[in-house]
Amino acid sequence: MRRIRLDLSYDGSGFCGWQIQARGRTVQGVVEEALSDLLKETVRVIGAGRTDSGVHAERQSCHFDTQNESLPADKFAPALNRFLPPDIRILESSAADSRFHARFSATERVYRYRFYPGFPAPPMWSRYALALKHPLSTERLNRLAAVFVGTHDFTAFCSASDRSRSKIRTINRAFFFEQPPFLVFEIAGNAFLWNMVRSVVGTVLSEYDNENAEEKIRGLLEKGNRSGCGATAPARGLSLIRVNYDEEE
Amino acid sequence: MRRIRLDLSYDGSGFCGWQIQARGRTVQGVVEEALSDLLKETVRVIGAGRTDSGVHAERQSCHFDTQNESLPADKFAPALNRFLPPDIRILESSAADSRFHARFSATERVYRYRFYPGFPAPPMWSRYALALKHPLSTERLNRLAAVFVGTHDFTAFCSASDRSRSKIRTINRAFFFEQPPFLVFEIAGNAFLWNMVRSVVGTVLSEYDNENAEEKIRGLLEKGNRSGCGATAPARGLSLIRVNYDEEE
Repeated sequence: MRRIRLDLSYDGSGFCGWQIQARGRTVQGVVEEALSDLLKETVRVIGAGRTDSGVHAERQSCHFDTQNESLPADKFAPALNRFLPPDIRILESSAADSRFHARFSATERVYRYRFYPGFPAPPMWSRYALALKHPLSTERLNRLAAVFVGTHDFTAFCSASDRSRSKIRTINRAFFFEQPPFLVFEIAGNAFLWNMVRSVVGTVLSEYDNENAEEKIRGLLEKGNRSGCGATAPARGLSLIRVNYDEEE
Repeated sequence: MRRIRLDLSYDGSGFCGWQIQARGRTVQGVVEEALSDLLKETVRVIGAGRTDSGVHAERQSCHFDTQNESLPADKFAPALNRFLPPDIRILESSAADSRFHARFSATERVYRYRFYPGFPAPPMWSRYALALKHPLSTERLNRLAAVFVGTHDFTAFCSASDRSRSKIRTINRAFFFEQPPFLVFEIAGNAFLWNMVRSVVGTVLSEYDNENAEEKIRGLLEKGNRSGCGATAPARGLSLIRVNYDEEE
């Protein structure tokens, strides 16, 4: 047996998320199917981040174990792409150490949430960004984003269905920047709860006009009161940008 | 009768181009159908640029005449959007002078051709950009692009089927710039022949490694020899960015 790491990208619009489930097309399901077509064996794929329905990935990482000893590790990418639909592309395949685990070895996940400053958004971008009816100040947004940086209990900022034992997460960076045609929110942390980024984005938008927004957000982090948060922002604006591992540092 | 101007955006992936035709879904056809649903009259729409099959528009302009005197001009946009599929959005509607003609009053068309520097491109971007297998130097590309600026006979750089009487066009600007995640080619001119931008892009790519590329391109412009050009670049990278009219200057 050997372990292969895949770095892949997908347009989440046509998927019920990463994780395989009884019904619905999932990224994990489609990749496992392509692997079994290619390798003629049943393969289980472990992803770094279980992106939600409609969420995209510019570079997700995953690994799997195979009995195949003949295909060079870097050839899995082009070989698999021939079996995959155009909304998933393997960007790179490489040999991984047996101690490498796509999920547990990951030290940082980087997400971006894209906004289109104008309404309606051009159809080219509307599947990948949330259209803004009113202009927003990057400076103001960055003051609110900064409150999330650090180690906090994110109970208030996740789905009620999240079953993680600890809701404490560390955010390394959270900031807005202009990358025309988009306004982009980037957030990087050790790990994220279910719906956490979309809940952070929804709260920043709903508190934008509130004079005491920073105080309010600090209170939500301290008290863990989910009802005080803004609506969860739509999935389509969110993309997993990359997963970082120690050996790359 | 009054004249209304529409500024609209579309994802060209699902259209056989702008211009209405006997078979196939076209932007003009879908907009005319939405207008007839809204206004209960048959309306003919005149576009500024007849974008090809698969070519996108971030802001195309068009006009039409209607007998409807009640709907305020700016309300055509939201009203039409309710009748239009999500791959077309009306960005703005306004009252136009009867002397305004979307095609003949236009003084400049601005196009962009997007490249993704990497292969394969993430599926999110692959419908809107051409993936590059090898890195290209923006400086080198700009030296080649500069040769097209000015007034030239573009016979060598258009489809053999183009029926324009004169093939002389004036290019005001042609340059490459980085706009992450894309490398972008922008070209602005008074008007463009059929397949002209895609032929210019294809030629810049095919001559990139040629030491005498600038000379070669100058020769193609002078001699009008179509067989010397590179392959026409794929439609998906190309977008009409905006159409300029005198009154806006």
